[in-house]
Amino acid sequence: MKNLLSMDEVSTEEIMTILNRAAEFEAGAQPQLEKEYFVANLFFEPSTRTKTSFEVAERRVGATVIPFDTGFSSVLKGETLYDTVKTIQQSGIDAVVIRHKQDAYYEELLEGLDVAIVNAGDGAGQHPSQSLLDLYTIYKEFGRFEGVQVTIAGDISHSRVAKSDAIALEKLGADVHFVCPPEWQGEFNAQHEWDQQIETSDVIMLLRVQHERDAAYEGFTTESYHAKYGLTVEREKQMKDGAIIMHPAPINRGVEIDSSLVECERSRIFAQMKNGLYIRMAIMEQILKGRD
Amino acid sequence: MKNLLSMDEVSTEEIMTILNRAAEFEAGAQPQLEKEYFVANLFFEPSTRTKTSFEVAERRVGATVIPFDTGFSSVLKGETLYDTVKTIQQSGIDAVVIRHKQDAYYEELLEGLDVAIVNAGDGAGQHPSQSLLDLYTIYKEFGRFEGVQVTIAGDISHSRVAKSDAIALEKLGADVHFVCPPEWQGEFNAQHEWDQQIETSDVIMLLRVQHERDAAYEGFTTESYHAKYGLTVEREKQMKDGAIIMHPAPINRGVEIDSSLVECERSRIFAQMKNGLYIRMAIMEQILKGRD
Amino acid sequence: MKNLLSMDEVSTEEIMTILNRAAEFEAGAQPQLEKEYFVANLFFEPSTRTKTSFEVAERRVGATVIPFDTGFSSVLKGETLYDTVKTIQQSGIDAVVIRHKQDAYYEELLEGLDVAIVNAGDGAGQHPSQSLLDLYTIYKEFGRFEGVQVTIAGDISHSRVAKSDAIALEKLGADVHFVCPPEWQGEFNAQHEWDQQIETSDVIMLLRVQHERDAAYEGFTTESYHAKYGLTVEREKQMKDGAIIMHPAPINRGVEIDSSLVECERSRIFAQMKNGLYIRMAIMEQILKGRD
Repeated sequence: MKNLLSMDEVSTEEIMTILNRAAEFEAGAQPQLEKEYFVANLFFEPSTRTKTSFEVAERRVGATVIPFDTGFSSVLKGETLYDTVKTIQQSGIDAVVIRHKQDAYYEELLEGLDVAIVNAGDGAGQHPSQSLLDLYTIYKEFGRFEGVQVTIAGDISHSRVAKSDAIALEKLGADVHFVCPPEWQGEFNAQHEWDQQIETSDVIMLLRVQHERDAAYEGFTTESYHAKYGLTVEREKQMKDGAIIMHPAPINRGVEIDSSLVECERSRIFAQMKNGLYIRMAIMEQILKGRD
Repeated sequence: MKNLLSMDEVSTEEIMTILNRAAEFEAGAQPQLEKEYFVANLFFEPSTRTKTSFEVAERRVGATVIPFDTGFSSVLKGETLYDTVKTIQQSGIDAVVIRHKQDAYYEELLEGLDVAIVNAGDGAGQHPSQSLLDLYTIYKEFGRFEGVQVTIAGDISHSRVAKSDAIALEKLGADVHFVCPPEWQGEFNAQHEWDQQIETSDVIMLLRVQHERDAAYEGFTTESYHAKYGLTVEREKQMKDGAIIMHPAPINRGVEIDSSLVECERSRIFAQMKNGLYIRMAIMEQILKGRD
Repeated sequence: MKNLLSMDEVSTEEIMTILNRAAEFEAGAQPQLEKEYFVANLFFEPSTRTKTSFEVAERRVGATVIPFDTGFSSVLKGETLYDTVKTIQQSGIDAVVIRHKQDAYYEELLEGLDVAIVNAGDGAGQHPSQSLLDLYTIYKEFGRFEGVQVTIAGDISHSRVAKSDAIALEKLGADVHFVCPPEWQGEFNAQHEWDQQIETSDVIMLLRVQHERDAAYEGFTTESYHAKYGLTVEREKQMKDGAIIMHPAPINRGVEIDSSLVECERSRIFAQMKNGLYIRMAIMEQILKGRD
């Protein structure tokens, strides 16, 4: 794997290779890189978990990480993303992990550069490393994807996680459903009530409500959203045996999920973050090995 | 020691253990950690010396340090501190060093987490690592605490250093005095003139005047504050033989201390920073060993 | 070499030592530092390439790099640069690489400190590491400096690169010419038309037009500046055989250079950045060895 850009391009074989390698790392396997690689994380949008997770994973596989302060860089001087990345490459960097507000920003980086690119989120596009850790979380739980019922609920139209997960899960044979207000379904065919979905899903994946964008929609309050689309204490009780709760975080407690459910028995929310470490170790090892 | 939160909770035995270990590091001892530990520094308030000191100390004891940009994190998206710290923990971090504007922010972190916490300053609460380096500076100078006369002068009510030092020094048998304007004494019983204090103190510890808060008080100018409460060239001459000057810095030259005294013979100001390195190595070694 | 401050102070012997060592690094030589050194990069002005280049070079020579967030430091609290740097030194740092908006900021750091200083740009002063990588780029191309015709074009009066390069190149026997609008020539004797310079130069070095300062000058538009002073497609065709194009970057594509020329055969722009890595490895090795 030369780059990791979107889940459209990753084959089911490549997915399973990464999931299996993550499982090996979780079981204590040591990374197998044979030389020193230099990596930089270019996060042009805020991030805690994704950036921290990559920072740890890169070091765990033995890479040397070069800090890059996007808020203080020449991008401020109007430099193109291509020129910034080429500059970084020429300083001796093997791979860059990029989050950027522009959809498919990586397209302008595919020619003329000799640096591996890992997409850590492009605009309203995709978020492949999050998707892979979601897949790993589901696979650890159910041992398969075929026929697993996954319901994704929340602001689907703005969610790169929803997009990446839907593509990957369908490729792997899971059944993906969506629950959200009509205004938020975007390209997806969603239901606008929970109805029986709450009882039939193996996985309920809640998405963050983007506070900053709420005003643009039809006037939900925190409470009315929670009551209609959130995972309330009552709804959790209707979930079937063995069903799990996921959330890519950061969480709005009391909006998309009742605060008391964040660490309940069904919740895999913090487990997802732990899984993210092993997944990103697997990704970075693959990507860096791909440099040889 | 599992966490380092406030000097109330640290016993005199624990203090002496850290001071002695710092002395060993200063004499060239090598740290004794037996595995790789990951540490993150979460400074939600500006800091040069404390953060830099921890960054170096952590690497010196062999920890791997993961960068965390608080100004660019999900905290901006309204995430709770608990969720942020739990996220970091799940990414594989063993210990976090936190500075945060909220008093006793760490209380909400004591349940549900499995990460060591080192308090690098909580609101107007405490600053235990600074206190320990102050203790080390005094102990190196006098070889004891019993009966040592320490005068702390300046904006005591807002100073977490004053609070931590007062608690620790009294526990160790030193006599602590305070000199400040009436409005700044907070919970402490302070004198409002230097008087004979200048001649009887073994240690004069000056605190930074917080420019941003000055307006709230009774209209000192830089000059009038310096004349009444600052360490002037004249006052330094009255200090007794062997007495030393301390300051937690950053310094306002010409306000709490005459600029020419910052590096005078009595001054231990820059020595304090050097001592801070050894103290923080001792703290981090203890805390990380406490993980096993 | 104890510090690297300005090209005035660096002898031709010292320059050639660094250039030769950079060539060794480029050929695969391993650095020869015998102990652990700690380095911090203090960039008080935005930078991508210079900072990244130092960050990689420092790690490549085996130094431990301590992060320092200038936008979040005690400098905000009004601390002097001297006190900030002394603090950092006392935390156990051997060398600091500084970029600061004040001309010759380093003068106040020459007494009282025991830390090596590498100037990464001082106000409208100098930029010695950029100059050394420019020299290396020219030397690799022509194998000599004597008689090489170098034309520097653009906002010369505000350019620390122009200043450092002019001083160094003349010292080494090259002939340096300047092309720029009358208002931008500063202390240099410049031509205000390209004329025959385009045909006789071995090196055409373009400088960034500082958008933010444009208004102060006589009303060029992007197009009119490019037509009169930029390297247009037509001008490139007039350049002599073997002549090269250089630019310290970041580039304003379409202003000082036509976008299509940025990676043309004559261009050494991205090669300069790669050369920067080897040059900065040589600088840091020298500086850190100078600590013993």
